[in-house]
Amino acid sequence: MRTIGVLLFPQFELLDVCGPVEVLGHRLLADRQRVVLIAREAGPVPSVQGTKLVADHGFADRPPLDVLLVPGGQGTRKEVDDAAFIDWISQASAATPVVSSVCTGAALLARAGVLDGRRATSNKRAFDWVVSQGPRVEWVRKARWVEDGKVWTSSGVSAGTDMALALVARLVDTETADLIAHVIEYTRHADPDDDPFA
Amino acid sequence: MRTIGVLLFPQFELLDVCGPVEVLGHRLLADRQRVVLIAREAGPVPSVQGTKLVADHGFADRPPLDVLLVPGGQGTRKEVDDAAFIDWISQASAATPVVSSVCTGAALLARAGVLDGRRATSNKRAFDWVVSQGPRVEWVRKARWVEDGKVWTSSGVSAGTDMALALVARLVDTETADLIAHVIEYTRHADPDDDPFA
Repeated sequence: MRTIGVLLFPQFELLDVCGPVEVLGHRLLADRQRVVLIAREAGPVPSVQGTKLVADHGFADRPPLDVLLVPGGQGTRKEVDDAAFIDWISQASAATPVVSSVCTGAALLARAGVLDGRRATSNKRAFDWVVSQGPRVEWVRKARWVEDGKVWTSSGVSAGTDMALALVARLVDTETADLIAHVIEYTRHADPDDDPFA
Repeated sequence: MRTIGVLLFPQFELLDVCGPVEVLGHRLLADRQRVVLIAREAGPVPSVQGTKLVADHGFADRPPLDVLLVPGGQGTRKEVDDAAFIDWISQASAATPVVSSVCTGAALLARAGVLDGRRATSNKRAFDWVVSQGPRVEWVRKARWVEDGKVWTSSGVSAGTDMALALVARLVDTETADLIAHVIEYTRHADPDDDPFA
């Protein structure tokens, strides 16, 4: 049973989390993997949209993870300067086989040193700010998502859903990824270089 | 200030809610409208994916709404037989200028009589079951979403995001809908008849 951990913080972007969780937590995968949400403390965490998700675990009681996913959102602007928060990401990333981000979540991974020496991407509207958070990262401006070793980074918001489907294709198989996309009536973009928003 | 109310119930489909809320609650619209989540009681409600959203209001303290959105999900199979739940939908729909559903949320609107004599759609995988819930509805099998007077019904899961963008185009303007789609790096489907999943 695989455990996918998704990080929450105040002012995360709602769809950065819920697109990937719709896919990675889909009932077609319920016998293979589960999604848990993790924040500083267990309990409700507000998104940019105002809607609150409930963190299942606090930092202190994180279960062992197979995948860590870090979303973006306005809150990243504050979180990059929280040393304890960044240190948690650094330690959790080192202990987890697959580490991923959506949108400006890449800025948090960059500050945690997870992207140093790797290729990575982020969303287009905040690209220059994200680049400024990771001077030792090989930033890729045109990509829906980028895979480099254990680290997967996706472009803005909706690109996270495509990256999540690509993760299912890798961790399970392509047929299952295609089936989930079909069931949720989503036109999957399976080519990581197909990026009309660059 | 417009208020968009989204109904929650146990085992709602996560993206049926969070796709539309990402759009309708986007910060580019923050000075025009807000999203509130409503359930039997205020507090956490679990989705099919396990992830919990927090209802801001219980049924008893619903604020006046400009738009009501009813999601689908496995939980609809149980909720269609809850008379008090269906009665709340009926009364809230009568009092609200725009009523909408995503996926099997159409079954709930059908049971509440909201769709009687109207054209409506739902998702493809449960279409026959949804049809059985509304014998006086003119069901449309091929559509991304259907608008009939005050009632908008969308097809499965991701179609709700396109319907929400169409609602923004109607309630605000097309430029804003296109801008939000661009910012969230989503390839918008603006034609309600463009339905490759039928």
